[in-house]
Amino acid sequence: MDCELCHGAGGTLLWQNETCRVVAVDEPGLPGFLRVVLNRHVREMTDLPADERSRLMEVVLAVEAHVRQSLEPDKMNLASLGNLTPHLHWHVIPRWRDDRHFPGAVWSAAKHDSPVPRERVAAAMRMAATLPAALEVLDA
Amino acid sequence: MDCELCHGAGGTLLWQNETCRVVAVDEPGLPGFLRVVLNRHVREMTDLPADERSRLMEVVLAVEAHVRQSLEPDKMNLASLGNLTPHLHWHVIPRWRDDRHFPGAVWSAAKHDSPVPRERVAAAMRMAATLPAALEVLDA
Repeated sequence: MDCELCHGAGGTLLWQNETCRVVAVDEPGLPGFLRVVLNRHVREMTDLPADERSRLMEVVLAVEAHVRQSLEPDKMNLASLGNLTPHLHWHVIPRWRDDRHFPGAVWSAAKHDSPVPRERVAAAMRMAATLPAALEVLDA
Repeated sequence: MDCELCHGAGGTLLWQNETCRVVAVDEPGLPGFLRVVLNRHVREMTDLPADERSRLMEVVLAVEAHVRQSLEPDKMNLASLGNLTPHLHWHVIPRWRDDRHFPGAVWSAAKHDSPVPRERVAAAMRMAATLPAALEVLDA
């Protein structure tokens, strides 16, 4: 099957368990943007059995909690779209009032191209480094 | 508090229980677009206790299941953004390869303005009419 999420991690691999993995997205304008990717190829949440839906959302929300605690963004955005890559993955995106798309979705046209504050990029690096320990309870 | 989802339903009310409500969104280019709105004013999923997260997602996914069964879209999109209205609500959006934004997110620029097939609009009306019965198991 010609699916990029079956053939690759889909970003920089930070953590994984039996159900899914967490990867960092390479979007310089959006530091701290992570994705939670289901390991197996399934199209929609409602194609999963109930226990697997719960396990996946538990990881998505543990990632949200860690991102919030680390970065204190103005808002969190969660989305499962997959129109181009119909292999279940959740976008977990910290948003700031001064980011390029705010208050639009990150898929809307950019409103400016001001540089991201350097301390926010550094904080996103620390967030990534501490993610595995924060998710340790979900290992297995 | 000046929150539109505290002061109004946020769309055409189709169903509600103690946790949340389901409303139809008035977007003529996107028939079948629903929102699941938490009744109380809470900003993020991770501000909810675990049982309330589960109850809300159970409704979101029951709505996805009903929309899929009724409309057989090419893809489902789920998103909790709330940058403008930070009162928890989930967008549940059936997508078709021929819709105005596909394969982009619905928040991306429209690619065309072709009319929506009339039978799809009619199917979305029937989907709305049968939603309360489909969610009956989640009443209370």
